Amino acid sequence: VTICKVTGTVVANQKVDRLDGASYFLVQEADPAGTPAGKMIVALDAVQAGEGDLVLVAQGSSCRQILSTREKAVDALIVGVIDLIDEDGELRYRCSS
Amino acid sequence: VTICKVTGTVVANQKVDRLDGASYFLVQEADPAGTPAGKMIVALDAVQAGEGDLVLVAQGSSCRQILSTREKAVDALIVGVIDLIDEDGELRYRCSS
Amino acid sequence: VTICKVTGTVVANQKVDRLDGASYFLVQEADPAGTPAGKMIVALDAVQAGEGDLVLVAQGSSCRQILSTREKAVDALIVGVIDLIDEDGELRYRCSS
Amino acid sequence: VTICKVTGTVVANQKVDRLDGASYFLVQEADPAGTPAGKMIVALDAVQAGEGDLVLVAQGSSCRQILSTREKAVDALIVGVIDLIDEDGELRYRCSS
Amino acid sequence: VTICKVTGTVVANQKVDRLDGASYFLVQEADPAGTPAGKMIVALDAVQAGEGDLVLVAQGSSCRQILSTREKAVDALIVGVIDLIDEDGELRYRCSS
Repeated sequence: VTICKVTGTVVANQKVDRLDGASYFLVQEADPAGTPAGKMIVALDAVQAGEGDLVLVAQGSSCRQILSTREKAVDALIVGVIDLIDEDGELRYRCSS
Repeated sequence: VTICKVTGTVVANQKVDRLDGASYFLVQEADPAGTPAGKMIVALDAVQAGEGDLVLVAQGSSCRQILSTREKAVDALIVGVIDLIDEDGELRYRCSS
Repeated sequence: VTICKVTGTVVANQKVDRLDGASYFLVQEADPAGTPAGKMIVALDAVQAGEGDLVLVAQGSSCRQILSTREKAVDALIVGVIDLIDEDGELRYRCSS
Repeated sequence: VTICKVTGTVVANQKVDRLDGASYFLVQEADPAGTPAGKMIVALDAVQAGEGDLVLVAQGSSCRQILSTREKAVDALIVGVIDLIDEDGELRYRCSS
Repeated sequence: VTICKVTGTVVANQKVDRLDGASYFLVQEADPAGTPAGKMIVALDAVQAGEGDLVLVAQGSSCRQILSTREKAVDALIVGVIDLIDEDGELRYRCSS
């Protein structure tokens, strides 16, 4: 699971049938303070995340363990919205919303 | 899922039996504006993509979740053709075709 | 399996249902002497690890092989707390607790 | 799937039982012109490739989808010998044999 | 599968139950001449390898295809001890023991 920031959305109408209705978020790997500073990927959302949220993104076959993605061509999934990150005893990130 | 641009095709006649008939596209990782700027891989196509398209590429076991690739030796699959990418509230890419 | 140091915790209340109750640790890849020097990821804990511990982190589908994570959206799991690391015949790390 | 050049062979007599009889090729990631320019890995061969060939290499669980590798400890497999690569409308590679 | 050199051992008493009894080796990616020159990982041993050996390491779900690791939280496994590596027609490595 990596810490990522939701930075945008991706629209694709011509899709693999079984993914119809799915919405894709553009997310970028972020450091523990929430600053985007890494690779950009496209992830499906399983937790009603929104743009600007700091989220947990699972990758690989783990993404198909929930009901809505079972047996679908999904390799990146937002599995949580982060509230707090603590590193070396210090609060590094707190969700402002 | 990564954003990639379809940049070419790869022909291989001597193939694993079970992949006969499959066609391979050369794709390159791209940024949200659609500019190729990363790793090149070879992906099968599940959505009738064409050269020059900006596409969504799934990797790993997720590629075998659709009927045509089930139990085949596939590890990269084009699962969508991108129409729009929005980043930080700005339109970064719009499909011109 | 990679050598990682537990450096913090991540709290996410809005999570995929099936992961309710799970706690996430922030871990960073470390060298054989135990010095953090690499990528940061978020891992679930299977062995009662604590902050500051040097641990073994498994990734990918291997994380779902234990009872508590079976069929859950988990892709990084702490599977051991390291006591000793020996490299080229020399003791490089010994757990101090 | 990545484009790789077969650059050598690896002999290992002391092997996991179930892989007895398998032969390993040393392959290196190559660009679309066929020039080796990347990571070196060791792959099993499923298509009677030979040294000097430009090949398609599948990685991960996709490697176990063919009969001869099913349930074996294989994570890289040569699945095709490349005849032609076309990039941006230009022929970049043609197999000379 | 990657070429790695066995450089040390890792001891972890507090482990996931199902891995009790397993021993971990510290291995480092090596070039075809056997010189360690890459990433360090921790791998289980399936072939009675020893420190100093040049070995083949499989990663991912392929590691769970043998009896002793089936359904265990393992993501890196030593699957062979290398005797010879030949690259571009030249002997690059020969096991000295």
